[in-house]
Amino acid sequence: MRTQVGIVGAGPAGLMLSHLLAAHGIDSVIVETRERSEIEATIRAGVLEQGTVDLLVETGVGARAITEGAKHDGVQLRFQGEGHRIDFAKLAGRSVWLYPQHEVLKDLIAARLEQGADIRFGARDVSLRDVTSDAPVIAFTDADGTPVELRCDVIAGCDGSSGVSKWTIPESERTDYFRAYPFGWFGILVEAPRSSEELIYTHSERGFALISTRTPQVQRMYFQCDPEENADDWSDDRIWDELQSRVAGGGFRLAEGRIFDRGVIPMRSYVCEPMRYGRLLLAGDAAHTVPPTGAKGLNLAIADVVVLARALDSFFSTGSTELLDAYGPTASRRVWWAQHFSWWMTSMLHTHPDSTPFDVRRQLGELDLVTSSTAGATHLAQAYTGWPLDR
Amino acid sequence: MRTQVGIVGAGPAGLMLSHLLAAHGIDSVIVETRERSEIEATIRAGVLEQGTVDLLVETGVGARAITEGAKHDGVQLRFQGEGHRIDFAKLAGRSVWLYPQHEVLKDLIAARLEQGADIRFGARDVSLRDVTSDAPVIAFTDADGTPVELRCDVIAGCDGSSGVSKWTIPESERTDYFRAYPFGWFGILVEAPRSSEELIYTHSERGFALISTRTPQVQRMYFQCDPEENADDWSDDRIWDELQSRVAGGGFRLAEGRIFDRGVIPMRSYVCEPMRYGRLLLAGDAAHTVPPTGAKGLNLAIADVVVLARALDSFFSTGSTELLDAYGPTASRRVWWAQHFSWWMTSMLHTHPDSTPFDVRRQLGELDLVTSSTAGATHLAQAYTGWPLDR
Repeated sequence: MRTQVGIVGAGPAGLMLSHLLAAHGIDSVIVETRERSEIEATIRAGVLEQGTVDLLVETGVGARAITEGAKHDGVQLRFQGEGHRIDFAKLAGRSVWLYPQHEVLKDLIAARLEQGADIRFGARDVSLRDVTSDAPVIAFTDADGTPVELRCDVIAGCDGSSGVSKWTIPESERTDYFRAYPFGWFGILVEAPRSSEELIYTHSERGFALISTRTPQVQRMYFQCDPEENADDWSDDRIWDELQSRVAGGGFRLAEGRIFDRGVIPMRSYVCEPMRYGRLLLAGDAAHTVPPTGAKGLNLAIADVVVLARALDSFFSTGSTELLDAYGPTASRRVWWAQHFSWWMTSMLHTHPDSTPFDVRRQLGELDLVTSSTAGATHLAQAYTGWPLDR
Repeated sequence: MRTQVGIVGAGPAGLMLSHLLAAHGIDSVIVETRERSEIEATIRAGVLEQGTVDLLVETGVGARAITEGAKHDGVQLRFQGEGHRIDFAKLAGRSVWLYPQHEVLKDLIAARLEQGADIRFGARDVSLRDVTSDAPVIAFTDADGTPVELRCDVIAGCDGSSGVSKWTIPESERTDYFRAYPFGWFGILVEAPRSSEELIYTHSERGFALISTRTPQVQRMYFQCDPEENADDWSDDRIWDELQSRVAGGGFRLAEGRIFDRGVIPMRSYVCEPMRYGRLLLAGDAAHTVPPTGAKGLNLAIADVVVLARALDSFFSTGSTELLDAYGPTASRRVWWAQHFSWWMTSMLHTHPDSTPFDVRRQLGELDLVTSSTAGATHLAQAYTGWPLDR
């Protein structure tokens, strides 16, 4: 079996890459270990940058994001019991959309299948071979048990943070940049009305909290916790006490409701370099993960494959590897911007286990300066809504 | 002996306060433990914010700062062997002046003495009494050995980071916010021509370096070192090797010369709250110290006394303590902005002893983002050249 671009992983990077390549007339096959139903039901990120939404719309897969997603023209930074709005529309001329990642994936899968794309869900034993040759291979066992050898011109490793692709790069050729944060996010889903029109990022001496929304009836809330915290140890009352105390001030209270999902998310930063090894190119979480504070994960995957699709188009139409060679350095610049932004939002808003009263006051000084300075707020707004895609 | 405002300390805060009060017809006496000659010869900070220079000029003590100081319209951030200019004039519409602190003090002392001010240099055994009463006292032994009791309406504690004033506030009423950085600055003075028209703040994997200038013939350079480093353990060759390696790249080399002064400066952040206790008001380094990275120490002292002089003018002309009550909260806002900015410049440019390769790349991502984003560079330029004084 042959294809031009073998794509490992049907997440945002893999599906969007396949979608963009198809528009250039480039053939691809996607190999994915999960079932379609699992992908379409797994709740992940939910904030789309302006550039991501624009790309979805312009390539014909953004209709539901626009009609069912919610455009947000700002967020609130809350500290010392008061909210301070960052006006994205005014400061950056851009917005973000709240539209869950799995809904984006549903849209992309539907569009790809409608165009006759070959997506192998439920594959097992996926491995990559001959990636430094001109004919690399994705070997896997198909959902029906058939062993398959998919010979490709190029392989795109889009199999996320726990995928096999990046481990195909020998350790001697690979640098793993890693940072674990000494806290996690305790996340809940709640049946309740919205507490706020816009997202609230809260600094408090008890730690960070994020008030987000899923639908008018379902809310998403997080609070900073010990990374080893067991979510089942917490009663609903204790969860609400913790959340209310962090956002307290000025009479503001969260609307409470039935908590129907809970879990603890680790906070990690990771970057793998290089992003290209022979005919293997990494994109999205396979090459880098960010902590969720900056809402950059999904958007960074999309930014990667925009650069990669153009490079592949150039490669297949001219035979030149010039843009493939430039892919890693080009994509990497935005990756490190996003790593910095995610670290910045994290360090500005979270309480470090060994933070001193000086550190807390310094954070409050920073929050005061950023929210009261047009330049500081613009810097944050531009980063949050997303730097322009390299199109 | 009586005065309206007893000022402890003839540094930038004390002298400028006395100068501003005189313009309002308010009488003050300055008590200083050092000799005039020592004050006028001690080399400290050298970067004046636009607002500081404007104030010096407008109050008649800025002539030499303008003619002998050097106006700088930008600085260079240097990383990965390349310089990136932050254009203060274009981004912030403001500049800074290189003019040494002891020259500012010479100008202020000369102006004060010319107006007949009472400055007690060489005082000993300074202590404060009755600061919560309406008639607080500065007790000291005069340079000629005479014990003096200076009864005041108000005492301004402007005696720097090692002065007695702040310790007069009982520990139960005082909060000390403190942070020590795990590195110092190795500073040298060199007989050599300038290596650069503008200051260079350098990030390198070997650590931070700052290339500054004193005169066309004398240069000031610093590099990050262990805080316990003994400056005498370093040969001149070793110093030059270290400095050259940190700024290396693109063929750039520092002009070397005879090193005639060297020393290690600790890096500390400190804030004392409250800034007012009864009739005692703290200003400048007596209330807060910043690491030198942001060049904020002297400027923050000036900003404090601008707020304090207005509050005292209101107090003496109306009897109302309203502005005195507001002094601490008003001045404190800028203090924490400056603490944040100094921490930011420090954390962006220095190598932390336990920093990982991720942390170094994250810093480079931040430097790349700040220097290539107009909003980011403007945020830095506004902070460096100084937020508007609260006049």
